[in-house]
Order: sequence, then structure tokens, then C-alpha cells
Amino acid sequence: MTALLAYERFMRIAYQGEPGAFSEAAARRVDAEAQLVPCRSFDEVFDAVDAGPASYGVVPIENSIGGSIHRNYDLLLAHELSIVGEVELPVVHHLLALPGATLEGLKRVYSHPQGLAQCERFLRSLKNVEVIATYDTAGSAKMVADGGAIDAAAIASARAGDVFGLHALASSIQDFDDNITRFLVIGRRPFGNSVPDKTTIVFTVPNEPGALFKALSVFALRGVDLTKLESRPIPGRPWEYLFYADLAAARDTLTCARALSHLAEFAPTLRTLGSYPSWKPAASRMPDPFEVVS
Amino acid sequence: MTALLAYERFMRIAYQGEPGAFSEAAARRVDAEAQLVPCRSFDEVFDAVDAGPASYGVVPIENSIGGSIHRNYDLLLAHELSIVGEVELPVVHHLLALPGATLEGLKRVYSHPQGLAQCERFLRSLKNVEVIATYDTAGSAKMVADGGAIDAAAIASARAGDVFGLHALASSIQDFDDNITRFLVIGRRPFGNSVPDKTTIVFTVPNEPGALFKALSVFALRGVDLTKLESRPIPGRPWEYLFYADLAAARDTLTCARALSHLAEFAPTLRTLGSYPSWKPAASRMPDPFEVVS
Repeated sequence: MTALLAYERFMRIAYQGEPGAFSEAAARRVDAEAQLVPCRSFDEVFDAVDAGPASYGVVPIENSIGGSIHRNYDLLLAHELSIVGEVELPVVHHLLALPGATLEGLKRVYSHPQGLAQCERFLRSLKNVEVIATYDTAGSAKMVADGGAIDAAAIASARAGDVFGLHALASSIQDFDDNITRFLVIGRRPFGNSVPDKTTIVFTVPNEPGALFKALSVFALRGVDLTKLESRPIPGRPWEYLFYADLAAARDTLTCARALSHLAEFAPTLRTLGSYPSWKPAASRMPDPFEVVS
Repeated sequence: MTALLAYERFMRIAYQGEPGAFSEAAARRVDAEAQLVPCRSFDEVFDAVDAGPASYGVVPIENSIGGSIHRNYDLLLAHELSIVGEVELPVVHHLLALPGATLEGLKRVYSHPQGLAQCERFLRSLKNVEVIATYDTAGSAKMVADGGAIDAAAIASARAGDVFGLHALASSIQDFDDNITRFLVIGRRPFGNSVPDKTTIVFTVPNEPGALFKALSVFALRGVDLTKLESRPIPGRPWEYLFYADLAAARDTLTCARALSHLAEFAPTLRTLGSYPSWKPAASRMPDPFEVVS
């Protein structure tokens, strides 16, 4: 990823959430020196890249425990932007509260439903605590800080604790250590010089039995590996679906290109959303700055 | 559905939400005379059926615009209950506010993210209004009623307006007329005497290229129609998936039974979540009581 950093000196990258959001950490992984543009919603991230002021956007697409973030699949379709990269980020949750708060004195815990679901076992260990779903992890931390009550806590990243002056009553409280969020980098032009190794497409199939099976055959019979298949409804056509597929191959490899033309022969719609490099976390080179609460 | 109503005289049906929630309407469709048990979460609905006090539960599984409700897929797996029926309900949204409120004077609109997404076009037509995501449609109506401010409104069902004393500033504001939610009836024993015409299974595939294609082949090659395929993450095994499939056939039809034994030959796990009758809305017999704000 070192080569990528030099690509554009004062790059602007949009992300959704408050400072301390996991998306902010992902944006820093993409380019540690970029100017970050916080947005209120995923829609605003796409708009910021579409019409400025950002060159790229970073949005979560899937968590290994919670599953897909469907709004972002829908937004990929609604915009003409390309997927230009992929970043994986380990998710570490902490129970954050104001100084003076204690585990025993807690009455309320706030977080995004995914944050709550990812810490279910820990939450069950707390007695007489009301668990309240909110719209944002880092936003919950802000709420607890602004509220001033010492019987309230938020589940969020350690950095959210730093940003909003909260302390960790408990650390690494997620149920599974293998809790990873996959983020997509979106943009109008390619990002850096890395060689693509993944392709994401979206397609529809004729409304007839066996149609999805036939669509998957174009990849399976050529040995092109499908790493993810997601279905989304087609608005206005109840119980018909768009299928999003991730292929473990660059679009211009011979087998992938042939598979895509084969699919185009019978798929009513087919669009390539991007062919891009995937970057896995390299723990040795990039220590997780959010792993320990300072 | 008439025959079903006589099945159990004082049946208790659990649903999630405040009175006025779309789930409450679905529960009434299942049995208009049942005693309804409101629950705070989908988890509580499953618990109420698992351990009492309810005989059945009604949970949304998919909306034709917003897509699947994934938490309920996860809960189907976590519990030993069966799917015993399916109900479709048209979704009609209204903009609800306290008496005295006007469209022009609005500053804030509250609803569940799905409610907001389903009324996107209408919301764009409102000027200088802040749109705030909450955890519940009917709960948003309650919040507006309790808050007492006449510059706030909620997007929810007409019945939520009735329940909480709100008036409709605008009616039928959803972007698509074909906005339908599909609910599952869950229980410990079959519901009524209707003949099953649908089967839902959950399975995993070996972690090798082409595995999903091979799984779908057992249905496609026998002409068993797959009406829905949903994937969910396997916690602790990043980027491996559980697949939920709806088949348009009863489990004990010959082709379906053979397809399922074929799948069991190579699927590491396979479970039938239920084989059940699907009930479509019959507009002539069951007028939608929520279509018009009184």
C-alpha cells in the first residue's frame, strides 16, 4: 500500500459517521495523510464523491458477524462511481462511559444494533441494564458524553472514547475475535497502481425457474470463484431480485471476461461495479491503533 | 384462512413493536380474535413462543423495497421453532403529527430507516426538514405524541396515528405502491389445516469453488423453483456463509424430498426450517383496515 500513498498528495476521502467511527479508521488505512470528510449518511458519502469535494469515499459493505450493509449495495447501483479498492479492518468494541462511572452502577447501554449484536454475550452478563439501539456507534459515545449521566455507557471504538473523553469500563467486549468489517473504496478514477484481483458485478436474471443456477454456471463451469453473492429487491417488482456477485479474478483475465460475456447473453441487465485490488490487514506493518484504550 | 380462525379459540400471538406497528397488523391477519402479545424486540418474540406465553409469533422476514430482515433469519437458526405459515401485508405509510401541525411548519421527521427509505421521494419534497432515523415506526409516532412539539412528525401506519392521537399531514407517502412485507408465522406446532406449498431450508456448502452452484443444481435439475436465496455470515468464520432458500414446493412432494436428500449428500449442514402454507392478501375478503386515516 506504500506506493498508493504517494499517488495524490492532498487527497480528500469521505466517510460516514462521527470522528471515532470505524469508517474513519478505514479511511485512514486507505491513506493516512488524506484529508478526511465526515458525512452524516452513506448517501452523503456517495454524493461527496460524485459531485465533490472528495476524490474517494470509504463505505462498509460487510461485517463478518453482522453481514452486509445493504444500503451501500443500493447506493453502488444508484451512482455511476466505481469500486476502486477494498480494505478489511478488525472491529474491537469497548464499553465507554464518563469518568466516575462503574460497571455496577450502569443503567443504560447505547449502540448501533450491529454493535449491540456483536457484543451480545457481554451484554447478557450485565444485570438490570437497559440496552438501547441507536443509529451510530461513535454517535452513541457522543450522546453519552453530551448527556453527562454516569449511569450510561456506549459500545464503540477506543478512538471514539478518546474523541469524546470517555473511559473504557470494559475492553474488547465483542463475542468473536474474528470480527472484521470489509470496506469498499469508491471513486471516479482508479486508486494507485495496484493490480486488480477482484471484480464486483450486479445482474438480474429472467423471471423463470433455474435462472440463478444458470447465471452461476457461467462462473462455475470456468472455474471462476464466487466469493460472495448478495440479493437485493427490485423496487416496484415484489419478490424479484438484483444479484451482486464478487468474483476472485480481475475483469480482464480471459476466463472472467468470457464468463461475463456468457452471462450478458441471457441476463436482462449486467453491470460491472468495479475490478480492483483487495488489501488485507498486514498486522506486522500496520498495528491496530484502536486495539488498546489509552 | 377462515378454517384457521377456528383452530384455537384463545390463541396468543407475539409480535414486535408498539401497538400500531405493521407486525401487529400482520398478527391480526393471522387470527383477528387472538390475544396479541407485544414484545420489545424480535428476540423477545422468539422467546415468548419458545418458553411461553405465546403459541405463535409473527415476524417480518422481507420487504419488497427494503429487503430481508436479517435478524429474524439469525433467530430462526438460533431457535428450534418451525415456520408454520406466511402472510403478506401491503405497507402504507403516513406522515403523522399532533393536531395543529402543518406541513410547512415541520422541522423534524422521525422513522425507522426502512420507513424513511421507503418514502425517499416524498421526503425530498419537504424543505428544511431534518430526517432522523429511529428504531421503530410506531415508536416514532409515540415519540412525536409524547414530545408534544408541533414541528415534528413521524412516518408510520395510520393505526399508529389512531393509537397515539396523531393526524395525517400526508397519506400514502411511500415511493412505490407495490410495497409489501412478508411475515413468517413461527410456532412449536402446525397452524391450522392448510396444505403446505412452500419450504424454507438453511444450509452450508463446502468451502470450495463452485459449491453454491452445485447446491442449487439439486433443485434446478429437478425443476424445484427457488423463490428466494439469502446469505448470512457464519460468526467466527469470516466470509463463509449460511444460505437460506425458499422452495415453491411442500417438503414431502417427491421432487422436493429427493432434492433435499441430494443436497444432504454434500452439504455439511442442512436444516428444514418449515414447510408451510403461504397466504397472499385477498383484497376482496380482507379489506386493509389501515389504508385510510380516519
